[in-house]
Amino acid sequence: MSGRYCVTGGAGFIGSHFVERLLAEEGTREVVAYDDLSNTTTRWIEPLLADERLRFVRADVLDTARLTEELTGWTQDDVVVHLASSVDMRKGYHDRGFDLRQCAEGTLSVLNAMRASGPRTVLFSSSSTVYGDPVTLPTPEHAGPYAPISMYGAGKLAAEALLSAYCHLDGFTAHVFRFGNVVGGRMNHGVIHDFIEKLDARRDRLQVLGDGRQRKNYFLVEECVDGILTASGKLGPGFHVLNLGNPGTVSVDEIAAIVIDEMGLKGVGLEHEGGVRGWPGDVPVVEYDLTRVHELGWSAPTDGRQAIRTCARRLLAERGWQRP
Amino acid sequence: MSGRYCVTGGAGFIGSHFVERLLAEEGTREVVAYDDLSNTTTRWIEPLLADERLRFVRADVLDTARLTEELTGWTQDDVVVHLASSVDMRKGYHDRGFDLRQCAEGTLSVLNAMRASGPRTVLFSSSSTVYGDPVTLPTPEHAGPYAPISMYGAGKLAAEALLSAYCHLDGFTAHVFRFGNVVGGRMNHGVIHDFIEKLDARRDRLQVLGDGRQRKNYFLVEECVDGILTASGKLGPGFHVLNLGNPGTVSVDEIAAIVIDEMGLKGVGLEHEGGVRGWPGDVPVVEYDLTRVHELGWSAPTDGRQAIRTCARRLLAERGWQRP
Repeated sequence: MSGRYCVTGGAGFIGSHFVERLLAEEGTREVVAYDDLSNTTTRWIEPLLADERLRFVRADVLDTARLTEELTGWTQDDVVVHLASSVDMRKGYHDRGFDLRQCAEGTLSVLNAMRASGPRTVLFSSSSTVYGDPVTLPTPEHAGPYAPISMYGAGKLAAEALLSAYCHLDGFTAHVFRFGNVVGGRMNHGVIHDFIEKLDARRDRLQVLGDGRQRKNYFLVEECVDGILTASGKLGPGFHVLNLGNPGTVSVDEIAAIVIDEMGLKGVGLEHEGGVRGWPGDVPVVEYDLTRVHELGWSAPTDGRQAIRTCARRLLAERGWQRP
Repeated sequence: MSGRYCVTGGAGFIGSHFVERLLAEEGTREVVAYDDLSNTTTRWIEPLLADERLRFVRADVLDTARLTEELTGWTQDDVVVHLASSVDMRKGYHDRGFDLRQCAEGTLSVLNAMRASGPRTVLFSSSSTVYGDPVTLPTPEHAGPYAPISMYGAGKLAAEALLSAYCHLDGFTAHVFRFGNVVGGRMNHGVIHDFIEKLDARRDRLQVLGDGRQRKNYFLVEECVDGILTASGKLGPGFHVLNLGNPGTVSVDEIAAIVIDEMGLKGVGLEHEGGVRGWPGDVPVVEYDLTRVHELGWSAPTDGRQAIRTCARRLLAERGWQRP
């Protein structure tokens, strides 16, 4: 890699961590953080702009012309890190065109901008949601037939399919990372964030979607970024798909207990809404077979429980939480 | 099933055969052939319209409002057979948005029309192209990770993903049939049709895309329709994916020899353009593991060579070919 990167969604939760990590690398010459601020603000990217290697562009990935303009003059060794994504897995239930537009068309737009300019390598944030309710647990990458149960998962699988086609048709390299649940500071969505919001509003009770027994893998955002960079340095050219996360699972009730503990609250009653799924399209059990990424020499240092504790601690610090 | 069907693409090659077969069944009460005539004419549907159970609607599947209107008053036992599809696997190479729009958005539109009206069962024509260059030959349905190498294949995989999501979110049933190469009368595309066109224009030479050694499974359109109806009567509710075709393969050079023989031509020189693929995105070997459909009690009666011969004979009859 050349040291030049364009990070779509670069001002967001994972994106800003990715940019920060790239700027910490000596080999990095130039970073464009490309973000329309639809899911974030400039809060996380602003402090990084003191580094003159970084440029922030406020624009939508669906604006192919604008993205092409940014990438013009770039070469095949430069890299696009395509993280721009909806963070709302529930939205597609009510707006059925949303994920196809946002995820599949967004990815097509990025690919077309790359094709019209220079870069030929793209790293993509896919998701465990492509598996739907998996036929195999822990789930390996090849566990087809994929049967996503949410529009979000369908959008991610469609995006993967487009990336695969461009690898063949245009000699692109696409490394697709199917993320488990990524957690950490700067999150403005997800179960830990939501629990903190709810408990801040009402400290004696916590409403839990589903039966609380949904269990998934949760891993830290810095480790996610490290996993992508490590693995993508070892994967060859062409199309590759990789599960990225940590082994085992943590249940929603366990997350509630950790968040309550970190907030210093006592006597909180859990109220379960019931049902095995948190929402229509929620996959109740996400547990990864990580053989492939482990074979590449990378594994997540932090386990799920500790990752959740660290995330909760950071989010509470960001909001200046005072223990009662 | 209730005996009421809406066949999208119902005036086309596979669609008109499907409609014809449905009308031959006593249990069929009503058939709507819904087709925008973008890939066909009324030539094949016209003779069937004498049957008052059939109605032809000229409209685009992307026109969700119009399709909803046609399906209003239909019930959950009525069936949509979604065959409307591009027949040009090469087009997406030059028009990168085409297959996503035509196939994925087209399928989303059909699903939304069903959701807004009554039917809850959809039979869908997917394709071997979702596998890309398969990791396993013969290829079973679960052979992931799918890595389509054409925009056409990416569009089909995206459509499958959407169907899967609606099965979960809305209680739909979707039977996805991954067709091998379907051949027969009424074709206006594909290798047999193209060979006949070329040989009609110039009888001493035949230009063959690729090296002529691409080999795939080819099966008859009537058998494809029969396979869909038989298998879908046995598959349960929910999302199911099934390879549909016949075992073994026929090479492009063998097809050329059969077509030349059926045309009664002699001394035709084959000119190979070279390369293992016929065009960018062509999968050179398509060979199916058909265990699943065989277990449902269906297999194709006709082998690939005979299917090609039958197809060539019919296409030649349609154009009034006179042997020299």
